[in-house]
Order: sequence, then C-alpha cells, then structure tokens
Amino acid sequence: MPERTLFAELDPIFHPRSEALIGASGKQGKIGRVLMERFLETGFQEFYPVNPRESEVLGVRAYGTITDIPGPVDMAIVLTPTDAALAAVRECAAKGVKTIVITTSGFGEAGGKGKELEQEMVRIAREKGARIIGPNCVGIYCPSSRLPFPLPAGKESGRVGVVSQSGFFADYVTVTATSNGIRFSKAISCGNESDLNIMDFLEYLGEDPETEIIVTYLEGVKDGRRFLHLAREISKKKPIILWKGGLTESGARAAVSHTGSMAGSGPVWEGALRQAGVVSVKSFEEALDCLYAFHFQPLPKGKRVGIISGPGGTAVSTTDRCLELGLEVPPFSPRTRERLLQKMPLVGGSIHNPIDLSLASVVNPRVHSDAIRIVAADENIDMLLVIAVVGGEVLRDFILEAKADAGIDKPLVVTVMAGDMQSVARDFRLFLGSGITIYSDALRAVKALAKLAEYARFRVRRADAGKNR
Amino acid sequence: MPERTLFAELDPIFHPRSEALIGASGKQGKIGRVLMERFLETGFQEFYPVNPRESEVLGVRAYGTITDIPGPVDMAIVLTPTDAALAAVRECAAKGVKTIVITTSGFGEAGGKGKELEQEMVRIAREKGARIIGPNCVGIYCPSSRLPFPLPAGKESGRVGVVSQSGFFADYVTVTATSNGIRFSKAISCGNESDLNIMDFLEYLGEDPETEIIVTYLEGVKDGRRFLHLAREISKKKPIILWKGGLTESGARAAVSHTGSMAGSGPVWEGALRQAGVVSVKSFEEALDCLYAFHFQPLPKGKRVGIISGPGGTAVSTTDRCLELGLEVPPFSPRTRERLLQKMPLVGGSIHNPIDLSLASVVNPRVHSDAIRIVAADENIDMLLVIAVVGGEVLRDFILEAKADAGIDKPLVVTVMAGDMQSVARDFRLFLGSGITIYSDALRAVKALAKLAEYARFRVRRADAGKNR
Repeated sequence: MPERTLFAELDPIFHPRSEALIGASGKQGKIGRVLMERFLETGFQEFYPVNPRESEVLGVRAYGTITDIPGPVDMAIVLTPTDAALAAVRECAAKGVKTIVITTSGFGEAGGKGKELEQEMVRIAREKGARIIGPNCVGIYCPSSRLPFPLPAGKESGRVGVVSQSGFFADYVTVTATSNGIRFSKAISCGNESDLNIMDFLEYLGEDPETEIIVTYLEGVKDGRRFLHLAREISKKKPIILWKGGLTESGARAAVSHTGSMAGSGPVWEGALRQAGVVSVKSFEEALDCLYAFHFQPLPKGKRVGIISGPGGTAVSTTDRCLELGLEVPPFSPRTRERLLQKMPLVGGSIHNPIDLSLASVVNPRVHSDAIRIVAADENIDMLLVIAVVGGEVLRDFILEAKADAGIDKPLVVTVMAGDMQSVARDFRLFLGSGITIYSDALRAVKALAKLAEYARFRVRRADAGKNR
Repeated sequence: MPERTLFAELDPIFHPRSEALIGASGKQGKIGRVLMERFLETGFQEFYPVNPRESEVLGVRAYGTITDIPGPVDMAIVLTPTDAALAAVRECAAKGVKTIVITTSGFGEAGGKGKELEQEMVRIAREKGARIIGPNCVGIYCPSSRLPFPLPAGKESGRVGVVSQSGFFADYVTVTATSNGIRFSKAISCGNESDLNIMDFLEYLGEDPETEIIVTYLEGVKDGRRFLHLAREISKKKPIILWKGGLTESGARAAVSHTGSMAGSGPVWEGALRQAGVVSVKSFEEALDCLYAFHFQPLPKGKRVGIISGPGGTAVSTTDRCLELGLEVPPFSPRTRERLLQKMPLVGGSIHNPIDLSLASVVNPRVHSDAIRIVAADENIDMLLVIAVVGGEVLRDFILEAKADAGIDKPLVVTVMAGDMQSVARDFRLFLGSGITIYSDALRAVKALAKLAEYARFRVRRADAGKNR
C-alpha cells in the first residue's frame, strides 16, 4: 500500500517540534514581520527567528544563521531575497532541518535560470534527507501544531484540508471560512512544487483521518492520469472541492508565469474531473459556497428539492435554476399538501412546490419553521431550500427548532434576501456559526445543492460498483 | 406616436398631490402600519389614513371611508382583506381617485373567481376614468414625489427605473441598491396586472427622461412579439436589465400561482432577449451585479480586458472565465510592457496580461494605482478588471487617484478578496458610494463586464443600422 508509506512519510511535516524563520523581521510591511506575529499569536514553543542584523526580533532572541541555533530544528521557513535562498537551503540541510518551506519567489515561475536553481536546492536538501515545500508559497497551516499562515486564521482544529498551488487561495480560503465557523485540519500551499507537489499532499489528505473534506486550487499536474486516478480513489471516501485554473489557452499561459506548471485544456479536464467524482468549481466564491454545503449538510438521497420561499418571484426563478442544473422540484405528497393547508396562509401564497409563503412570512416568520417541519417529512423530497426575506436570530432559531423537532437528516440550506450587505454579513456569521448553510443568492444555493446531489450519486454508484466486484 | 401618448397618460400616476391609505393601521406587524411609517418618513403632504375603526393612526387624523375625506384624492392604496377590496375600489372610483393601487392579494393568482373579481374591479374603475395597479403588488416608489415602498429605500432621486411583476423584487432591489449608493427615478410593482401591465410601464420608463437604466423582473407577458419589439426599441436608448422567471416548465407552473401570468419556454426567450439587446440575468444577485456595472461604468469600445491581479491563481482562473464568456485577454502593447517593467516588482509577479502583482500588492498597495494608470492608456485594452487583496480607503483612494490622473473613460471594476464578509460589506458601501463598481468574486465581475460589452456591441450595431437606412 504505497498510500500508507506516503502518509507516514509526510505526516511528520505537520508536527515539527522546532521551527526557524529565516528572514524574521520587526519591520512593518515585511512578510518576515507578519509571520513573526502569527507565530507569537499561536504560541509555537521552540521557535527561532533568524536574522543576521538583529539579536532580537519582536522581543524574541534572534540568531544570525540557522547554524547558530543550539538545538535541532525540524522545520525552517525561508523568506530571504531570491539570491540568498540557495545559501539558506544549504545551511538548513547542513543543520539537519527536515522540512524547508521556501516562501521566496523568483524561481521557476520567473523563467531564466529559475528552474535550475530550484533543482539545485532540491538536490542539496534531498542529499541530507530534507524535503522542500515551494518555492513561491506560504507553506503550512496546521492549527493543532500551531503552524500559521500569513493571514490570521483560527487556532482551533477542524476537518477541512486544503492544498493549493496558489498561496493566496490557501491563505484566503482558510481565513474567510474560519470567520464563518469552519475549522481546518491542515492547509498546504505548495507553490512551484520543486520537490513535494500537490499530488503528494492530496494523497496525504486523502489518507489523513483528521481530514473529511478537501479543498484545492490546481493549475496543472505533471501526470494527469495519476492525478485523476488518485482523485477518484479519494472521492470514494471524501469530497474534493476543486478550483481549476488554466482551463483556456490564455489562462494556461498565465498559469505558466504564475507557478510554472502546465495546464490541460478545458473540456477534457472538466469531463475527467466529473467522472472522477470531483466537485469542480469556477471561482473563489463558488469554492466557499460548496464548502459551506459539504461541511454542514449530509449527503442527499436523491435530487428532489423542496423550495420554501418568501418572495414568489424568487421561488419561480429558483425552480428554473434547479431544473437547468439537473435537480427536480416535484409535487408534494397529498399528506404534505394537507398539512401545509392547515398551517399556511392561503391568501397570496401557494402550498405547491415551490411554496410561496407570501408577505405573511415577514409578518409571522414562524411559518418558515412550520413549512420546514412539514416538507422535511415528505418522502418525495430529498433536500430543502429556504428562501427567506427575514434573517437574524429570529429565523435562525425557527430553523434550529424545526431541525431539532423533525430530526431532519436531509440537506437544508437557506438564502436570505436581506436589504443590505451589512446584515447579510451578520447573517452569514450567525447562520454558519450555528451550522446552517446560508447563501446571499438563490442561484448560488441551487448550484451548491446540485453539486451535493451529484457527489452523492457518485458515492452511491461507486459503493454499488464495489459490492458487485 | 403612441409612446408619447402613453407617457403623457401614465406620467401623472407618479405625481399625485393627495394620497389615501385604505387599511392604514397603528398595529405592529400590519402592512398598514409599515406603509404609514414610510409615508410619515417621506413627509408626503396631503396624506389621509383610512380606517373605519380609528379616528387617528400614528398621530394622523384618520377617515372612516375615503368618501369622508374633504378634498380630492389622486391616488389610493388598498390594503383591505380580499373580500373588502371590491367595495374599496367602488368607493375610490366614486370619489374620483385617478390611480388605485391594490396591494391586497388572493385574486387571479389564487384561482377560483379571482380573475373575474379583478375584471369587475377594473370595469368599475375605468368607468370613472381611474386606473388600477395590481392587485397583489406593492405599488409605486417615486422619491421625487415622496411615494414609498414598504421597505425604507432612499429619499433621493436617481436615474434607475424598476418595473416588476414581483413585489418582493421591486422592494428588495431598491432597498439593497440604495444602501450601496444607487438612486432611483421610479419603481413600479405591477402584480397581477388586472389593468396596467409591465409593458405599459416599460414603455413609460423607456420614454421617461429621468430614467437611464431599467431593471425588471418579468414572468410572462400576454403579447410576446410586442414585448420584444418594445424591448428592442428601448434598448437602443437605454439598457434593460431583465430577470426572467418561469423559463422552465416547472418554473412556469409556479409563475401561474405567483402572478397568474403565462411564461414562455426557456431557450426561445433567451435567444429573443439577446437579439432585442436585453441584458438578461438569472438571479437577484446577478441583477444587482449588472446594475452596479451599468450604473457606474461607461460602455466599452470593445471586449478586450486588462486584468490587474494581486492573487496569481485568481488571475489565471479569471482569464479562463473571460474567454469562456466571449471576452479577450490580449497581450499588452510593447509600450505598456515597458512602462510596467519600470514600475512593477519583478519577483514573483508578471507584467503580462493578466498582471500578477504578487505579494508586493499587499505590502505596497500603490502598485495597483500605477498598474491602472499604465494599462488604462493601452489602446489594446477596452476594460480594466482589478483583483485586489487589500480593500478599504487605501485601495479606494489609489483607484480614484489613478482614474482622475489618467482621465479613464474605460470601464474599471474591482474585485476584493477580503478575508471576511464584514469587510466585504464595508468595501461595497465604500466603493460603490465612491462610484467604483466592486464585486466579491472575480467570476461575478467577469459576467458583468461580458454583459456590458455585449450591450455595447448591440448599441453600436443598432446605431450603424440606423445610419444605413
């Protein structure tokens, strides 16, 4: 089982006992200062700033070179200028550092002799048994080990793993999702992949028992066939939400100067990803939208959506979007219609699917709760989509109440049409923090439900295929 | 010229000197209370609450029936229960009211005898020369005349007109866009269209000199051919941003119980709308996204986008999205590349299109400003898309500075990848309030630019066709 071996090989990377920051700085606006602050915040114990011109950085004793550090160093982050990186790697290797994260850029992605320099650094490192992450990356975020990214994400550990060829994506997806109640197991920015690459870390996260959902930004891989096989194997166990850059020729050209990797052509990739069970997204916001669905919702048993809407127009249009994206909005069972008739205001509304709660939902938000209870019990319905015009604690509590009462094991997502973005932002924090998936637009909610249903079908088909073997 | 006649006929509707609210109430949770508060806020002068059980509502003298009001009443809003609406209309007509807005629902959209009742109300009204808006609508918002919707939108007048078959849409689009710096000329919720319909108001807004952009939610029209002809004529002068509900069979079924109108089939509609120059959108958020582009940006001369990005990964993926949506991301001119080379950090970035500003953009946000100035001057570029990782006043000021210095007459939109939704919400208010179109996701920005370019092409083609006649 090669996976086990790779997992055992890579796992220590996420648990260093000692760490050096080569290029640590006290100067505002320097990445060396930003990372210093993060390490001080997480409270990493055996932490050593390295700076040849300072004896102390932000109150922590600094060392002129990594060689000067008395004890062993498991991991080093290299922030030096490009032309000083090779020397730093050489010193790290000599010191016995096991993982060298090279944040510095200006190598393979810059053309010229960059690629050769990368290879030279890898040769030096591997000779001493060290591994390199990067260059041109932000390294590793692992809250349980107190390893931070440059942006301040959460200190608590969770069950989402990230691996990305874009440092910005890794950093922003963790910090944004953290502010909305998601917690991460590990996040890796692998940059130019001079040594360890995105496939290594995908395979690792696939095996990692702490990781239940994987989010990844990918521009290109050296071995597309191996990647797809791996993605398919992992998708049988846990979803991979993948944002693929470089699907068009121009995009691919941009990818070369971004991370130096070769990207494949669009249609081929998209079809292959779908077959591999990968949850493919097209933007940062779509990646988050999917994450919020997969993180907080169970997998649906089918593709039949029950829509409960305040605004009638949005109910109509949302039904369109469901059908366009392969979902169904079937009639409710006679029992459900009967129960709805008893509870719903008749005037100006509709008890058919989509339910139009009408203006009554503003005056009496409790109708949301009643409708959820009734629709959740309908055997013709696999997923619930609530389009609310009221938000805040009132709606949150009615939804939690309905979920608790009805013991709902079906996906339930909420869209708020709040009047301004400030209140939408408040609702996002409030609802996601309470484990309720929320969107600011019904189209986005439908897209996420469609992905959830598609992945659920993949899992069932794979499980069936497994049985028949 | 029938348009002139219709304009002259409908314009007085937006300028009533006196207004009665039939069903005004002081009770919390009642629509009659909500509208009372709005009228008190706008300070409409000759305003008469009507309530048979109160002599005063929220401190304003109330009348038992509209007949009791001493002077003339130009407009009346009917909020009575369904079974009392016919009598109210009869009294309004007898009183000589010119416009009767029926908010009450439970008519044509509810089936049964609803349609007949509507026809009876229209007959009674028209006999006395009165016109009906609704039923099942929220009526008219016209800030210059102090006419409010139920939700508190702005008091200032602007140049966006709205007409909608969904009351919720009319109400929410005005309140949301107002909170982001947009101002409206007139907004009409026309509900079941028993008398005046969406085409009448579209034609009106098309002629209205105060309205420069039209936003509309539409489920169905009785005469599709007339609608498309009208839409095409209006689109030659001003853009119509249209959200069409009921494109699928299930959606159309839902539309019948929503506003009682028949919706057409999807592909036919979509093709026809495109030919008519209509800016077609698929959700509430997309409608707003387009509005922010059309409101704050000039029309582009072509479809070539210059991308200036902090995150490299997003630059790559955004290039993909541009090409998928029919835009181009061409190489910069030699002169532009030369100027960029002088100003841009070389390490980790790229001066090709898309420009990758790299981490330097976080440390020194001024590079955004320099890049905008240089790219805006490139004759190969028609539109600019800035994908920033910093937001707030700093970025806003650099953009305003660059725009002022360079005298930019090309569309320029900004995407912020801020870490959490609270700061995104702040940036929306800040940027849109400063006349800068902003998005929280690059895919949404690209979609809006594609709509802008498509509409610009329609205008040019129409203008050329006009010349050749």
